[in-house]
Amino acid sequence: MNLANIRFDEKGLVPAIVQDAQSKEVLMLAYMNRESLQKSLETGETWFYSRSRQELWHKGATSGHTQRIVDMRYDCDSDALLVLVEPAGPACHTGSYSCFSHSIDGEVREVSPHRFAIINKLEEIIAK
Amino acid sequence: MNLANIRFDEKGLVPAIVQDAQSKEVLMLAYMNRESLQKSLETGETWFYSRSRQELWHKGATSGHTQRIVDMRYDCDSDALLVLVEPAGPACHTGSYSCFSHSIDGEVREVSPHRFAIINKLEEIIAK
Repeated sequence: MNLANIRFDEKGLVPAIVQDAQSKEVLMLAYMNRESLQKSLETGETWFYSRSRQELWHKGATSGHTQRIVDMRYDCDSDALLVLVEPAGPACHTGSYSCFSHSIDGEVREVSPHRFAIINKLEEIIAK
Repeated sequence: MNLANIRFDEKGLVPAIVQDAQSKEVLMLAYMNRESLQKSLETGETWFYSRSRQELWHKGATSGHTQRIVDMRYDCDSDALLVLVEPAGPACHTGSYSCFSHSIDGEVREVSPHRFAIINKLEEIIAK
């Protein structure tokens, strides 16, 4: 673990992009402080720091929609994290699979965990 | 366009996750101010605000590795952007396809744009 390498900002936070390890969809962006990063690594589930509530936050603690960590990466500047997860439910408090479901063009984008749905289609075609 | 909805922080910035629209790999995390967001929307290519150089930054202006914007989304709090792009070259100044190529376990992860390489494998298997 290269925890010492991670560069926290002046508030002691680092942005953490959460991505579904299988579908590769981006689920949310949240922030970790050193303690929540350590908790995440120890427990194998995502812990963040809530800037609005100013407290540690175990994702899914109340909703049950935890995120099991598959891999965690940091970027070339060591000031951003990418957390690949297996989500136990929707990432968004609105009940959506991803928090990024609104396009800037004003439309709603359907973001879905079913990255491999195409395989079923292929199977049908091959069967014919 | 719902530009008025976007919530910039106290420095006038919003984090922008850049994702390859085809491979779905996360390429980088950068920051936009209102002007760079407008430039991005006007030109269809990514413009950011460099916090270290304190200036607008047209991604690829010197390297040629521009990013054509396919879609831009904002999250449920309107304080983070997800920019889906077609990259003209590596996203990272190190020459890597993605800035997120180091795992926190100390290993280097090979992140590749070849999301559909598996299709070639499938083709081989079907041919047999």
